[in-house]
Amino acid sequence: MPVNAQYRLAARPSGLPKDDDWQYTEDAVPSPGDGRFLVEVQYLSLDPAMRTWMNPGRSYVPPVGIGEVMRAAGIGTVVESNHAGFKPGQSVFGTFGVQNFAVSDGQGVQVVDTSLAPAPTFLGTLGISGITAYFGLFDVGRPEPGQTVVVSAAAGSVGIVTGQLAKIHGCRVVGIAGGPDKCRTLVEEYGFDAAVDHRAGNLRADLKEHAPDGIDVFFDNVGGAVLEAALARLARGARIVLSGAVSQYNSTEGPRGPANYMQLLVQRASMTGFVFSDYADRYPEAIEALAGWVREGKLKTREDVVTGGISKFPETLLKLFRGENTGKLVLAL
Amino acid sequence: MPVNAQYRLAARPSGLPKDDDWQYTEDAVPSPGDGRFLVEVQYLSLDPAMRTWMNPGRSYVPPVGIGEVMRAAGIGTVVESNHAGFKPGQSVFGTFGVQNFAVSDGQGVQVVDTSLAPAPTFLGTLGISGITAYFGLFDVGRPEPGQTVVVSAAAGSVGIVTGQLAKIHGCRVVGIAGGPDKCRTLVEEYGFDAAVDHRAGNLRADLKEHAPDGIDVFFDNVGGAVLEAALARLARGARIVLSGAVSQYNSTEGPRGPANYMQLLVQRASMTGFVFSDYADRYPEAIEALAGWVREGKLKTREDVVTGGISKFPETLLKLFRGENTGKLVLAL
Repeated sequence: MPVNAQYRLAARPSGLPKDDDWQYTEDAVPSPGDGRFLVEVQYLSLDPAMRTWMNPGRSYVPPVGIGEVMRAAGIGTVVESNHAGFKPGQSVFGTFGVQNFAVSDGQGVQVVDTSLAPAPTFLGTLGISGITAYFGLFDVGRPEPGQTVVVSAAAGSVGIVTGQLAKIHGCRVVGIAGGPDKCRTLVEEYGFDAAVDHRAGNLRADLKEHAPDGIDVFFDNVGGAVLEAALARLARGARIVLSGAVSQYNSTEGPRGPANYMQLLVQRASMTGFVFSDYADRYPEAIEALAGWVREGKLKTREDVVTGGISKFPETLLKLFRGENTGKLVLAL
Repeated sequence: MPVNAQYRLAARPSGLPKDDDWQYTEDAVPSPGDGRFLVEVQYLSLDPAMRTWMNPGRSYVPPVGIGEVMRAAGIGTVVESNHAGFKPGQSVFGTFGVQNFAVSDGQGVQVVDTSLAPAPTFLGTLGISGITAYFGLFDVGRPEPGQTVVVSAAAGSVGIVTGQLAKIHGCRVVGIAGGPDKCRTLVEEYGFDAAVDHRAGNLRADLKEHAPDGIDVFFDNVGGAVLEAALARLARGARIVLSGAVSQYNSTEGPRGPANYMQLLVQRASMTGFVFSDYADRYPEAIEALAGWVREGKLKTREDVVTGGISKFPETLLKLFRGENTGKLVLAL
């Protein structure tokens, strides 16, 4: 008889999440009440933002409560339904949590067509990552063809899409990533004009070499020293898109602000934060565009799928913060 | 026989400028060559940004060179002219430097009509300060009537105009200033809805009280802990206008970035730098609007004029960084 295995938040971590910060539980598989349906989760989305949801205090979403199932997006199959909009057998995307089964009322849940692309792609390029890249780049960053776009965590799920979208748009694209292998992959497989290794210890000089006319759009997923290096290299009128700050999420000394933020004044530049979910009414536009580019071969999808089931969740999450993934990190349940 | 007394930059200061960082010199009064004119400077503008011009490295203007006359804006009278556009007896505004006499080719120099307002007002409300407030608030901050505008260094030359402009625009206006006297002045004499004293040690709670619905526009002249307190209180979609960072200009530990800058993401907010001189082709629009409000009694001008001549320059500049001035700080030569 199947059980519903779950990871719950046991304690608020200091620094990187430790095993003690999680509680593994097994519940009975729930029954969906009226207007609800039961989903069996097949793929979990692992996102840097999950670390921020573990902290106390409201961010753009409330924190996960102690003892609650950890929040996570995922793809699953409807197995039982008392909801007119969802039928057994359908593949659905939603925030189902770190568990094998979830009951949903349909809020925020979308049916996905896995005949178009494999399910993990709907967590990456045709899911939150692609949507984040699309609106962050085009609506917030607003690059013009020929301008220089720099992306941090460029080999991560959002970065690898953002860089390719900027290339499609006719921009010069420079990725910042950790390690020579990722940098080579970005240039050779994903068409970036250049990629610089922030671990090589030469970030400011490398950015100067590869963005000789300055950075017009900086799409930041990292923060910290990487953000400061980009601020030091802005072109006049540059736009910084704040998508994340993964270098800061596990800091035990509290987050660090960009010391040279007054470069925004020197260069008449802006730094703007956004949250993908604000664009919910325009998701179809984004998905249609992204799927079109995938079909035409202009946009390559990339998922890093970890197998082994839900028990791998704690260690798989840490892969994100060690920068071990290329493309979208997904756990197959 | 008159001499041209000058203060030159002798050394790049660490922290607050010391007497040793200046060199006092006396030159002969220069003669204007072809296409040039001689100005006798009557009033010097003292601005926090002057401290940034003393540092090495290019900011939005090049640094003042060692041994050069210190850069400063001022108001003077044309005393001799070989330039068709300027006649002896005219009052002029320009960047004449910390000296009694300057030769100019007319670049960036504007004739001012001192029958409309006293000369120091053309350095403050009807000069750079007013122009900075006007474009920073209306073009960068873009407040809507009814929104909450918070201004730091609110009793300073730019802040005191910015707050009044926001009131004219129908906003709720909260000033941040140093000390109870300045705060009282802002509310009682300049019509601010509230003013909070950042020296009282209660800034975050005070902002929460006086901006209960959050801050829609934060016009920042200060940086540091004041900027962080405002970031913690932003309303959804807020705009931070970066006009200055006076708390950081004399730091010997290097500038400090706002640790909670990711509030920009949480609140889908932006932080944008600007430099008033980018709006040079729209100065007439600003001056006309500002002068109109002054005439109607809606905008009160305030200058803090120090007398005693050029030898008072080094100590008068320090008044800015001690927060001792209310309104525009001007040195009468």
